Amino acid sequence: MDQSATLIETPPGPGSVQDQASTAGTAAPHEHSHVSFQEGLELECGVVLAPMVMAYRTYGRLGPRADNAVLVCHALTGDQYAAETHPVSGKPGWWSRLVGPGLPIDTDRFFVICINVLGGCMGSTGPRSARPDAGGEPWGTEFPPVTIRDMVAAQAKVVSSLGIERLFAVVGGSMGGMQVLSWAATYPERVFAALPIATASFHSAQNIAFNEVSRQAIFADPDWHGGRYWADGLVPARGLAVARMMAHITYLSEEALTRKFGRRVQRDPIAKADAGAPLSLFGEMFEVESYLRHQGSSFVRRFDANSYLTITRAMDYFDIAMDHGGDLSAAFVGTRTRFCIVSFSSDWLFPTPQSRAVARALNKAAANVSFVEIETDKGHDAFLLDEPEFDRTIRGFLSGCAEHAGLATPTTDIPTVP
Amino acid sequence: MDQSATLIETPPGPGSVQDQASTAGTAAPHEHSHVSFQEGLELECGVVLAPMVMAYRTYGRLGPRADNAVLVCHALTGDQYAAETHPVSGKPGWWSRLVGPGLPIDTDRFFVICINVLGGCMGSTGPRSARPDAGGEPWGTEFPPVTIRDMVAAQAKVVSSLGIERLFAVVGGSMGGMQVLSWAATYPERVFAALPIATASFHSAQNIAFNEVSRQAIFADPDWHGGRYWADGLVPARGLAVARMMAHITYLSEEALTRKFGRRVQRDPIAKADAGAPLSLFGEMFEVESYLRHQGSSFVRRFDANSYLTITRAMDYFDIAMDHGGDLSAAFVGTRTRFCIVSFSSDWLFPTPQSRAVARALNKAAANVSFVEIETDKGHDAFLLDEPEFDRTIRGFLSGCAEHAGLATPTTDIPTVP
Repeated sequence: MDQSATLIETPPGPGSVQDQASTAGTAAPHEHSHVSFQEGLELECGVVLAPMVMAYRTYGRLGPRADNAVLVCHALTGDQYAAETHPVSGKPGWWSRLVGPGLPIDTDRFFVICINVLGGCMGSTGPRSARPDAGGEPWGTEFPPVTIRDMVAAQAKVVSSLGIERLFAVVGGSMGGMQVLSWAATYPERVFAALPIATASFHSAQNIAFNEVSRQAIFADPDWHGGRYWADGLVPARGLAVARMMAHITYLSEEALTRKFGRRVQRDPIAKADAGAPLSLFGEMFEVESYLRHQGSSFVRRFDANSYLTITRAMDYFDIAMDHGGDLSAAFVGTRTRFCIVSFSSDWLFPTPQSRAVARALNKAAANVSFVEIETDKGHDAFLLDEPEFDRTIRGFLSGCAEHAGLATPTTDIPTVP
Repeated sequence: MDQSATLIETPPGPGSVQDQASTAGTAAPHEHSHVSFQEGLELECGVVLAPMVMAYRTYGRLGPRADNAVLVCHALTGDQYAAETHPVSGKPGWWSRLVGPGLPIDTDRFFVICINVLGGCMGSTGPRSARPDAGGEPWGTEFPPVTIRDMVAAQAKVVSSLGIERLFAVVGGSMGGMQVLSWAATYPERVFAALPIATASFHSAQNIAFNEVSRQAIFADPDWHGGRYWADGLVPARGLAVARMMAHITYLSEEALTRKFGRRVQRDPIAKADAGAPLSLFGEMFEVESYLRHQGSSFVRRFDANSYLTITRAMDYFDIAMDHGGDLSAAFVGTRTRFCIVSFSSDWLFPTPQSRAVARALNKAAANVSFVEIETDKGHDAFLLDEPEFDRTIRGFLSGCAEHAGLATPTTDIPTVP
């Protein structure tokens, strides 16, 4: 079944206006499905961002009681195209493996929503959007700092605009998992089940350090132009590529890199002919280098540098316990949400002890929580890769929760929203 | 006792010429003690590098039988100033903690030699040196690729020039440890004891990947100028700083970063006033960011970008087993060198299993080997930091070997070389 055929046109919510998201910058303009909020949103920093546009995609059909919605939250470099061909890269959606008819997040059963985060660059309001007071000029580095909680508050408005009061589930990995935790802490009554994957309740010093280096790599690029690169039709492609390359290493495990590439070498296509080119020895380069360069260069074609800065900053500031007097369990006291925490044994970016700490805090808050560590050598990226035990965990947890929630079993004949 | 007082002027070796090392580039010119080899060295790539200058420092006195020499090999960003105030940074030598009178590498007993690696930028021939055929023009990116074995061959010439046939010990951490292993494999008769620390017999895919990102960061800097930055009196400071910042994260453990900085914030000195400056949230930055920026900026004042490229490449190509038909133990068959392999439990750049593999190969080769994993949360950098069990290990191993070698016990009255 063609997944794009499961896509429905969502009705504009109350008080929303359908319009074209600003796409200043270098990416090919693309009309993203979205909803606009004229009243905007007051951010944690105090700035009111108005109007606010949120771009999103949906898969499956909303049931008559609007009780089968699953919000999928994307990670740092993800976007709303979770389960269909990406309009810029032409590649399959980042969670096509998991979201679709008959798949663990079953679109025959669930109405799946995926929203580009606030501060992103795929249609939601972000640094690339025109600021209201500047005659069409993009925000750029003047875009106000957003937090994970701001992202979640913006998503909550989209969810409401779709006529959904309570989400059956909120699911996401990495920064998506941060959003899941923030949803459960901020809107406990609106989340029946929460599935935070490969994540933590705060960003560690090491993760902040990696993010800072990636930001410095962007600042070091001459085409950065103090953040106003769009003014000259430029992108800080080299800096952004370096940032992506470094981050990509942290997404994989040492074992995965060794298994995939080891120390295999290949002919260096540019060798020493160009003195400015990578220095090679005996005209060779390692395959892992070639792979990373590809990762870097393909990323810059689809991502905005100012969004990268904004979103990494939001991750760095994420610390749920800090918002609750230093006690993580206090964030979840009295919650009726059912939690399933998933970590991966070889993930060194969000290592298992960080997930276990979340599970422990939820236990202390007397929450309904299960915790699964998946044995894998694929590292942090395992949540995006073929990992059968992970798939079974997601499917099992959602099925069990659906039963508790009294959701209809899958059928091809669920009545649609009137 | 003032450590600098233990420094002796070493006599020029046979056939060597004392001259001023080339210091083209941006670092303040500084006359480094050195020895020149007019005949140069044939590198593994086939290029004959002639003349070749090697800068070095010595501490302690060579005994009458020239049997008490300890070669200390420095790591990627280290240099020959192991145990005295650094002439550029003004900081204590990188191993002042370990090398000195009464210290684990006891200069009352041993004659310690530390040599700037071939390809370096503190006086030894490297990319900053004038190439013989270019009228004083530096080599820059045209500097031939060197290997760890080339570095060791160059050191061997220095050692011979000092009238030393056999080294009592070769000691070093990280890339210094690679040199120790290469010494033992290449010149087994010239090494009585070998102490490779926090190292491996090959550079892993993950380590190659990190090095590649650091190289790309340098290439991304506009002041890189295709490697000819010196021509305009520039240095690719931003790129080199990014490279250093990233590498620095890999030198520490997650625990060490958390202990040192956690998520503490401080006022961002530049905040959002400068649009090109790091994006901060609420005018704050994390202490770990401030620390990394300092690491980056202080590094560029003392290191040459082309040397960074040359030396990281040498590390990437290091693979002793590959030089012996894929069998690491074959590199050490028949060796009489005594080995002590040291790893650190929280080192994720050169993790313990890589050291254990070296110990296993040495066992297979029937070598005399001991292996110690030091429990610490300080990560790879532990070999440079206060770690009492590590100090005891070094002292104990060297003392035991000295006894076996029949070395005189420490005295203030060892007769000097005639």
